[in-house]
Amino acid sequence: VSAAPFVIRRTVRWGDTDPAGIIYTPRFLDFAVEAAEAWFVAVTGYDWYKLRTELKLGSPMAHASLDFRKPVRPGEELAMTVLVLDLGRTSITLGVEGRNAAGDLCFEAKLVPVIIEVATIRPYLIPEEFRRRIEDYRQACGG
Amino acid sequence: VSAAPFVIRRTVRWGDTDPAGIIYTPRFLDFAVEAAEAWFVAVTGYDWYKLRTELKLGSPMAHASLDFRKPVRPGEELAMTVLVLDLGRTSITLGVEGRNAAGDLCFEAKLVPVIIEVATIRPYLIPEEFRRRIEDYRQACGG
Amino acid sequence: VSAAPFVIRRTVRWGDTDPAGIIYTPRFLDFAVEAAEAWFVAVTGYDWYKLRTELKLGSPMAHASLDFRKPVRPGEELAMTVLVLDLGRTSITLGVEGRNAAGDLCFEAKLVPVIIEVATIRPYLIPEEFRRRIEDYRQACGG
Amino acid sequence: VSAAPFVIRRTVRWGDTDPAGIIYTPRFLDFAVEAAEAWFVAVTGYDWYKLRTELKLGSPMAHASLDFRKPVRPGEELAMTVLVLDLGRTSITLGVEGRNAAGDLCFEAKLVPVIIEVATIRPYLIPEEFRRRIEDYRQACGG
Repeated sequence: VSAAPFVIRRTVRWGDTDPAGIIYTPRFLDFAVEAAEAWFVAVTGYDWYKLRTELKLGSPMAHASLDFRKPVRPGEELAMTVLVLDLGRTSITLGVEGRNAAGDLCFEAKLVPVIIEVATIRPYLIPEEFRRRIEDYRQACGG
Repeated sequence: VSAAPFVIRRTVRWGDTDPAGIIYTPRFLDFAVEAAEAWFVAVTGYDWYKLRTELKLGSPMAHASLDFRKPVRPGEELAMTVLVLDLGRTSITLGVEGRNAAGDLCFEAKLVPVIIEVATIRPYLIPEEFRRRIEDYRQACGG
Repeated sequence: VSAAPFVIRRTVRWGDTDPAGIIYTPRFLDFAVEAAEAWFVAVTGYDWYKLRTELKLGSPMAHASLDFRKPVRPGEELAMTVLVLDLGRTSITLGVEGRNAAGDLCFEAKLVPVIIEVATIRPYLIPEEFRRRIEDYRQACGG
Repeated sequence: VSAAPFVIRRTVRWGDTDPAGIIYTPRFLDFAVEAAEAWFVAVTGYDWYKLRTELKLGSPMAHASLDFRKPVRPGEELAMTVLVLDLGRTSITLGVEGRNAAGDLCFEAKLVPVIIEVATIRPYLIPEEFRRRIEDYRQACGG
């Protein structure tokens, strides 16, 4: 990865928001998971589709949790930072922080993707090359 | 509410699923939040829109967490049960359990909606009538 | 199919709507495509997933068009009726009409799914059994 | 607008695609409508939320149609170009073309937003300043 930590930005759209004029709760999980996918591409060189079709591995989530700190309105830009909180044998614990243009924390997410083998749908050891790159990323972020 | 616990069912659609042929992670939060909304209507008589337009109250989420137990494929029917885990002064802690047709637990969610006043966007005491009905529901579910 | 025309109902949720308090435009296409999928299951006995995994056929859309007649608010129930407008060699032209509880037409959609062979991604003759059932459905709807 | 025609790009995500490994049909309408919203911001300086809260105007769709030319896979980048096909008294006819990295046309959409007054929910004359800017954009695109 050229830069650490990895940050991805998106403009909040009209369709991301609800009649209260703020982001509809489940959209935050879409944003967090898309940030995790983009991070995975940046660090490993594989998106989840290529991971599946070329390496016959998958990356489903075992757990997700979200804390909502501040409402976000259409037109605001959200910057999402992806951090590695823990690296297990078959799973990764990611933290995603979403901040508005003023730098205020709007939401925090924890995601736990597990690497599985497509053929058996069973947890699978994170490939060594991926592990090394994820560790490097973690170091680059300051551990 | 005529029945306790409250259960809502949905058929998993092609569009709910991803290239792995299973429900895409963020859709589970859509399902859980929609179940919570339907439960709120069943228990209080107000959906979130009527709550906002008539009582000038809102019900944003402060927290959501999800554990994914079993993948779910298109065509499967998911039954979601909504339970009251805790009832605070301004917030409700809901548990949502999603089970497939065989009764297997596929996902569990915890949602913490907070009642707020629309004018100030500040936490607001749960209206007494709502509190009474939610307590009754909790009792009917076995405490 | 037990009943013709085929009608599927859904309650419009908070999350289906936007800051104007009405259904967000793209959600209508979700509703129409989900109605078409449910109709396909009812008429052929196959959902698109089973179609793909068992018959190695797909049903992507070649065209979709929508006219929006009346805004729809959260809490309203939409009834969607699926009609066969035309039946080609490899494609089906479906009409989807969405009405509110008062019977007012809220939106109309035209969808043109094409049957393709998964292996080649090329148009494929609609299986004879499917064609017969679709023709029967069309007759049952009054031609 | 600094550049004409207006082009917006997005990477197709895992969650945009279905078990066939291609973009799920309704997502194309999300993409087209989001492109139209971004174009509207670029040309008028107002997103639909600011339009509603500040000018008390709305921009619901009266019509949408889509033709699907080429399947799109996760990881591909789609470039969407927004063109003004017609400018009426209260409505705009937009064309959205989506192309992959090779420049192949993957989908075409036509969208017809109508300007309405929020208070009455009735069609409203496009504000003169907007009309001028939209005409300028159209000219800049070559008419």
